[in-house]
Amino acid sequence: MAIEIVFLGTSAGVPTKNRNLSSIALRPKQSREWLLFDCGEATQHQIMKSSVSIPKIDKIFITHLHGDHIYGIFGLLASRAMSGTDKAISIYGPDGLEEMIETVKRLSGLNLPFDITYYTVKGSQRLEFEHYTIETVKLSHSIESIGYIFIEKDKKGHFDIEKAKSAGISPGPIIAKLKRGETVTLNDGIVIDGKEFISPPQKGKIVIISGDNDSPCLFEKYGSVDLMIHEATYTQRDFDKLERKFKHTTAKDLAATAQKMGVKKLVLTHISPRYDTAQRETELIKEAKRYYEGEAILAKDLMTIEI
Amino acid sequence: MAIEIVFLGTSAGVPTKNRNLSSIALRPKQSREWLLFDCGEATQHQIMKSSVSIPKIDKIFITHLHGDHIYGIFGLLASRAMSGTDKAISIYGPDGLEEMIETVKRLSGLNLPFDITYYTVKGSQRLEFEHYTIETVKLSHSIESIGYIFIEKDKKGHFDIEKAKSAGISPGPIIAKLKRGETVTLNDGIVIDGKEFISPPQKGKIVIISGDNDSPCLFEKYGSVDLMIHEATYTQRDFDKLERKFKHTTAKDLAATAQKMGVKKLVLTHISPRYDTAQRETELIKEAKRYYEGEAILAKDLMTIEI
Repeated sequence: MAIEIVFLGTSAGVPTKNRNLSSIALRPKQSREWLLFDCGEATQHQIMKSSVSIPKIDKIFITHLHGDHIYGIFGLLASRAMSGTDKAISIYGPDGLEEMIETVKRLSGLNLPFDITYYTVKGSQRLEFEHYTIETVKLSHSIESIGYIFIEKDKKGHFDIEKAKSAGISPGPIIAKLKRGETVTLNDGIVIDGKEFISPPQKGKIVIISGDNDSPCLFEKYGSVDLMIHEATYTQRDFDKLERKFKHTTAKDLAATAQKMGVKKLVLTHISPRYDTAQRETELIKEAKRYYEGEAILAKDLMTIEI
Repeated sequence: MAIEIVFLGTSAGVPTKNRNLSSIALRPKQSREWLLFDCGEATQHQIMKSSVSIPKIDKIFITHLHGDHIYGIFGLLASRAMSGTDKAISIYGPDGLEEMIETVKRLSGLNLPFDITYYTVKGSQRLEFEHYTIETVKLSHSIESIGYIFIEKDKKGHFDIEKAKSAGISPGPIIAKLKRGETVTLNDGIVIDGKEFISPPQKGKIVIISGDNDSPCLFEKYGSVDLMIHEATYTQRDFDKLERKFKHTTAKDLAATAQKMGVKKLVLTHISPRYDTAQRETELIKEAKRYYEGEAILAKDLMTIEI
């Protein structure tokens, strides 16, 4: 099984007919849970059209508190309650998130049958889970914004019991030693290295999920990234013409950084509504491809990627 | 021009594939503005598919603070700001509404280019506008809930100048008196009653828009209602089987009250997701028609009614 990523919303600021507001769901390889990154308004509506399941969302990671990334969380929690689950949920994000959710909950009489644990993310942190780690990076935006890096734990090599049997080793204490990778001397004097029967460890995948950010270089310390999902609100050409420069990344900036980092696959998301035609979309992806040689993809709503 | 009513969302509690959460837009006869009643999550998405225009919404009336009636207001305000208008907006609703909106605004860094005026509705009030009055009724629900009655002002009769000319009356001070409905004696002794030239006044229409409520009889003082839009979350048959009785109205209750009141047209809305098939919908409307002889309509999303 692969890591599955579903783009629930890919628009910046306001919804369009083709793109909803920011939200990305990620299902780790080893589990049936869904991690949700951001929750713009109508994320629950998008989930209804996808393979994501609301009661299986037990962790929500919020990049920042701008409405296009957060206004769907109240309804999502309400619908999670209506789904009948009483499993606790953890919500990670910047300072103010707990106050916002708790105020809305209290005033709207929302009684949840599950507990919420809030974690306020401050700067660079490591959040450890059974099969993966999530690291956080402080980004550069008009309000506090966080990037999340999903890092799968390396998978230990697998002991090939059939190969050991073929080599004439009988089950028993010798096998146990070999499984631990130890070297064993058999009664006939033959020396056997357990490592010969263990497949090489499988390197965990790394996925970057950015929040709004005008400095993609803040992710440069991650050298071996399998998938980088980052906002690319404008083309450089359009950005240069803006009277008011919002703190966002251009397709060019992002592509050049991804190229420098050696990112294996790049997804551009958080697309300005001005690109809401096939022709204008092309400008974004073409600009990215001029500066990045890997596989560059323009996110679309309900698109799924497996890595 | 008629009063136009657009049903933006007609589901109770959670969105379904066919119905979004509560919101109704009403355009008064004499103006280009839209009044919005309730604003469940993704109301702005529904507006995109309708004839309603976000920058033309200058007044929002909230029936109660349950999430399925209010969680779309933050995004709607953000998108109204993005539309470029700086016209002030008035928001009417129960206590707590201002705190909810202002807290979310502050924490999400939402800067609006227009002012919001909040009016806390307490019990029965009359809100006077140029062409209509809105009366409020305190309803019976698990939290404070308000019904709004839109009452068009009666239109004065129109003076028929051509008819007066045909009767041989020349323009001048006599016409002015007749226009005021006075009786005038002409030089030749003929007595003319101004009222003969004035068409009868046109009675303003009355539209009831309820919030969640288990007692539709609270609207009984309105005798001559042109259109009653009221929640009918369940059939009586299903309601009787519920273990936990939520404070909602059944199709039977609503229909019997509308019949007693002599309501001209009745719309059932705020439909439980359990009726999300054509067959199950029929049960609701059939039950209503057994107890109400007028025109009963089951609301559908994006349905428009003109009266």
